[in-house]
Amino acid sequence: MPERLVVIGGDAAGMSAASQARRRRPDDLEIVALEKGSWTSYSACGIPYLVGGDVASLDDLVARSPQTFRDAFRIDVRLRSEAMAIDLDARTVEVRDHEHDRTYALGFDVLHIATGAHPMRPPLPGIDGADIHGVQTLDDAAHLLDHVTSKQVDIRESRVVIVGGGYIGLEMAEAFVRRGADTTVVTSTAQPLNLFDPDIGELVGDAMRAHGITVRCNERVTTFEETGRRTTLVHTDAGDPPIEADLVVLGMGVGPNAGLARDAGLATGDRGAISTDRRQRTSAEGVYAAGDCCESFDRVTGRRVYVALGTVANKQGRVAGINIGGGYATFPGVIGTAVTKLCALEVARTGVSEREAVEAGFEYVAVTIDSTTRAGYFPGTQPIRVKMLAEKKSGHVIGAQIIGQEGAAKRIDVIATAITAGMTADEMTALDLSYAPPFAPVWDPVLIAARKAAEALADAGQA
Amino acid sequence: MPERLVVIGGDAAGMSAASQARRRRPDDLEIVALEKGSWTSYSACGIPYLVGGDVASLDDLVARSPQTFRDAFRIDVRLRSEAMAIDLDARTVEVRDHEHDRTYALGFDVLHIATGAHPMRPPLPGIDGADIHGVQTLDDAAHLLDHVTSKQVDIRESRVVIVGGGYIGLEMAEAFVRRGADTTVVTSTAQPLNLFDPDIGELVGDAMRAHGITVRCNERVTTFEETGRRTTLVHTDAGDPPIEADLVVLGMGVGPNAGLARDAGLATGDRGAISTDRRQRTSAEGVYAAGDCCESFDRVTGRRVYVALGTVANKQGRVAGINIGGGYATFPGVIGTAVTKLCALEVARTGVSEREAVEAGFEYVAVTIDSTTRAGYFPGTQPIRVKMLAEKKSGHVIGAQIIGQEGAAKRIDVIATAITAGMTADEMTALDLSYAPPFAPVWDPVLIAARKAAEALADAGQA
Repeated sequence: MPERLVVIGGDAAGMSAASQARRRRPDDLEIVALEKGSWTSYSACGIPYLVGGDVASLDDLVARSPQTFRDAFRIDVRLRSEAMAIDLDARTVEVRDHEHDRTYALGFDVLHIATGAHPMRPPLPGIDGADIHGVQTLDDAAHLLDHVTSKQVDIRESRVVIVGGGYIGLEMAEAFVRRGADTTVVTSTAQPLNLFDPDIGELVGDAMRAHGITVRCNERVTTFEETGRRTTLVHTDAGDPPIEADLVVLGMGVGPNAGLARDAGLATGDRGAISTDRRQRTSAEGVYAAGDCCESFDRVTGRRVYVALGTVANKQGRVAGINIGGGYATFPGVIGTAVTKLCALEVARTGVSEREAVEAGFEYVAVTIDSTTRAGYFPGTQPIRVKMLAEKKSGHVIGAQIIGQEGAAKRIDVIATAITAGMTADEMTALDLSYAPPFAPVWDPVLIAARKAAEALADAGQA
Repeated sequence: MPERLVVIGGDAAGMSAASQARRRRPDDLEIVALEKGSWTSYSACGIPYLVGGDVASLDDLVARSPQTFRDAFRIDVRLRSEAMAIDLDARTVEVRDHEHDRTYALGFDVLHIATGAHPMRPPLPGIDGADIHGVQTLDDAAHLLDHVTSKQVDIRESRVVIVGGGYIGLEMAEAFVRRGADTTVVTSTAQPLNLFDPDIGELVGDAMRAHGITVRCNERVTTFEETGRRTTLVHTDAGDPPIEADLVVLGMGVGPNAGLARDAGLATGDRGAISTDRRQRTSAEGVYAAGDCCESFDRVTGRRVYVALGTVANKQGRVAGINIGGGYATFPGVIGTAVTKLCALEVARTGVSEREAVEAGFEYVAVTIDSTTRAGYFPGTQPIRVKMLAEKKSGHVIGAQIIGQEGAAKRIDVIATAITAGMTADEMTALDLSYAPPFAPVWDPVLIAARKAAEALADAGQA
């Protein structure tokens, strides 16, 4: 009898682990993957582009179908199959087969938990209303897409309210306004994109408003009131009148689906996410976890953090799969990199923001520079602003934010790499970055920011 | 009497040093800058885009005018003023003032040499013909632009021959073919872009040919024969018939303008370029040098190298200026990064190519991956190929080449940063690079290449 690996969750963190394990153990491992929904390995990050019309069909978001995993990887993928409980002593998972309406126990030798995340639904009256949706699964996507393409509803007569001003909320707002909906974002923070500093968030808010989106900041939703006339009244702490919505989208972030693991006795940490070591091993022997249900380690602050991103899920899943397959791999952590495109604005961050720097106890300098994405004289050159933070004592770059037009944001990756390597701002000034007029000014904006940070450090007496 | 700094050369390496020195010594330094041509601080890299029509006017290529330096930096810029000799004992420069047809001696306390480079003109019969031009100065640019916009010559009836298959040669070929000229590139190497590996160079050659450019490889020019009928016959070792040209452009690389320094007794090194230490100090007390007339240090191979690029000139000039101004700065060297755009292809390199790796004595693995610039399902996604080299023993990434369409090439900067930091391929796989569907697949192509390199290292027993 070969050993059996049971994977709970058929998206990135689960299936990348399963396929890595298969590559390393082609013959002596049985692999069963349980997925409670109807899809595997899909890009939830693509949902706003599906709703906005950039992506033609829901199927485009599926990277690998269940059949591909069955045929090419010999993985027994079981759809509509939900893990209800884990018994670590008996080494079994209780599986609810929604398709055939039955429950059975599935034994495992090795278990990999990749149960993902769920949209945050604060306990507000009415939040479970029928017209209130998250943006997390392809089932959510199908509902939202149905709304914008429905023959019964003219989307151009529809009022959409997005609750939350993070990436996903703003991306959804842009998607709906592109479809012609009357779109409002309500956020409790002073600016949208709270993971950025206010000076960047303010520019984003301005761009959203210029694009026709109503952005209401410093405002908390208190109640969702169903009227029975297909309209939800969204009450906020700004008082009357409430905002009328034909559709409400929750973009208030996500939380880990870690209940199953916690109930089984596995250790959890930040925001209740499953704790793992660097090899993605949980507190129980032979049990791994990866992705949106797990904690990560922040390499800049040294803290355990909860980060639900597809890149992290894929990396952690791969690491888990290599280790399950008998290899050795570690996931050293994240540094808070993220990027989004909003109304022609590209916005990216890495490392810590000013608020996070303060929280982590860093003494730092912060500089901001304005430049262009190409040589100033080259056609198609676009504005770019780079903000950079460096620690006073060490000179290390600890964070950066970029905002600009086409060609701006991906430059964050250079700074992410430099932060990971522990480079100082002064060391960054000498980086041999590529230059030709169609690609950059002779001093790349990243280098200009590093120069200014190095000068600020010198002025602060920490040359 | 304040000290006097004399700067020889009014382009990037000279004027960035002069302005840095001024910033640090606002009051006690007289600065004289000698420029033999008529412009300061211009972008020679922009010349192909001027000739091709992307850039409207020659003035667009001038970053800062002489008057700006005079007014804002109190630098005594003397145009059409050529340094003819340096007397280190007398601390004087002999200056030829072409404007007023006179020669005078100019004393200095500190000297900064930034005499730039000249196009290579191998001693071939006829190479000094009137219709044979380099692509180095704005005077060259004016000549070439005159040819494509002349009312006497219909550029669409014109035959242009580019000698040399490096960046500048290929960029010029594209510029001329865009103007409608019958354009031929003759190169002695087996593929164009000899600084890239042949597998990349071949793709570039194919793209050039598909764009209507005749590319003749493995062919050496032997003689330029003037016919007197405004046609130059370009004879090559491929034999008859010769190639008929109305205009010949030399793109055979450049050499350092270091004769003045050498004659004064300064130490020189690779390809005769001026030797400096990390602070851009030459072998003589109080004499600095920077830019295309100087050597650089290659951080990957540990060798002194000659690299004539605007980025390096700017960085070295800044370092020289800080040191001249009484500060402390060093230039740690280059790693061979370069990028170009050719016929919609973006091509970039950093670190060593396979040939350079062999020459430097590295044992290495090389991997190549194909991916896309955005999520595969996202509109506008483009192909990208990444080739990556890693040293077997250490696992360090030592080189990379990228070829692809829009959005591909600038990713080389991430690898350049990783190489500079001494990262291994395995360490690179964990880099927290930015991801969103409009910007990258969930595994950025750089990470896919790093993964494959790490796997190849593991297979080679160097996990």
